[in-house]
Amino acid sequence: MDSFTEKTIKKEIIFEGKIIDLAVHDVKLPNGKESKREIVTHPGAVAIIAMDEEENIVLVDQYRKPLEKTIAEIPAGKLEQGEDPLECAKRELEEETGLVAATWTALGSFYTSPGFADELIYLFLAEDLSGGNVNLDEDEFVESYKVTVEDAVKLIESQKIHDAKTVYAIQYLQLRKLQKKLG
Amino acid sequence: MDSFTEKTIKKEIIFEGKIIDLAVHDVKLPNGKESKREIVTHPGAVAIIAMDEEENIVLVDQYRKPLEKTIAEIPAGKLEQGEDPLECAKRELEEETGLVAATWTALGSFYTSPGFADELIYLFLAEDLSGGNVNLDEDEFVESYKVTVEDAVKLIESQKIHDAKTVYAIQYLQLRKLQKKLG
Repeated sequence: MDSFTEKTIKKEIIFEGKIIDLAVHDVKLPNGKESKREIVTHPGAVAIIAMDEEENIVLVDQYRKPLEKTIAEIPAGKLEQGEDPLECAKRELEEETGLVAATWTALGSFYTSPGFADELIYLFLAEDLSGGNVNLDEDEFVESYKVTVEDAVKLIESQKIHDAKTVYAIQYLQLRKLQKKLG
Repeated sequence: MDSFTEKTIKKEIIFEGKIIDLAVHDVKLPNGKESKREIVTHPGAVAIIAMDEEENIVLVDQYRKPLEKTIAEIPAGKLEQGEDPLECAKRELEEETGLVAATWTALGSFYTSPGFADELIYLFLAEDLSGGNVNLDEDEFVESYKVTVEDAVKLIESQKIHDAKTVYAIQYLQLRKLQKKLG
């Protein structure tokens, strides 16, 4: 399908920020015509499904300025320059929740908004949890707690859980439970 | 948790584009300090799990300029100003795949990147499909086809499917199948 490639003719950098950059590309389309693409670049992120022995999972309440509301999400954070995703996941889980996990499983990655942004999230399952030290960034205010998968499903219904990575994570746990039940 | 609210003190509009806008907000944090938030606004979108009687689902191959690669996604598209999400879903499904569906089910919504963007995706299940007319936007090049859920899982493993809404959709179908099996 590489016949669909859109080649950049000109790139205008609009903004270089603390977290995201924005550029507008003039592109040549497969039919030879031209168009513009507005592209946000992002360092990428990790998200962690942290589950205890009773199959409760850890959520963090966080105010999300773009939404102007507080939502409940699985722990997550941005990659530092050159940082390994697993190392980032271990760091973010402890920073946000005060938990360390003895067992880590990589569950793959996904782009969040491929139409306008290159943000890639690496998802991990963290098990065999024990206490560490909460250590938040100075402009970060979050509160962590545990819920059952059933309660998390209710939080999706009430839109307290309302972001892609977290609804994906809850669905992952529902699927895992059923697969176990079926052997 | 509204004690976490971040109040905007000053808002600087950086960019107003065809699809997204960008602003930087100076905000007052819960501890009284100040910080900056880089915020992308987006009109919102719909995505459609279109499934036939044999439980095949419809994917579209599309070049995604932010990723510089072609990926396979469920049909999706941006909301027009004031457009009802269901009407948008019907329009986008027919535009991108030439299919119309007799049965529509709303499956909820999620924010894709709540840390820096307000993009909200409304997800629909479309069943009882029949042929319509493909009618793409003039700068849109996509190719649609059907796959089994099992093949879609392989496409996730090979990262041909690599975006949040589509991995969510495939997982939704896996869960649905297992739930049916269990009665």
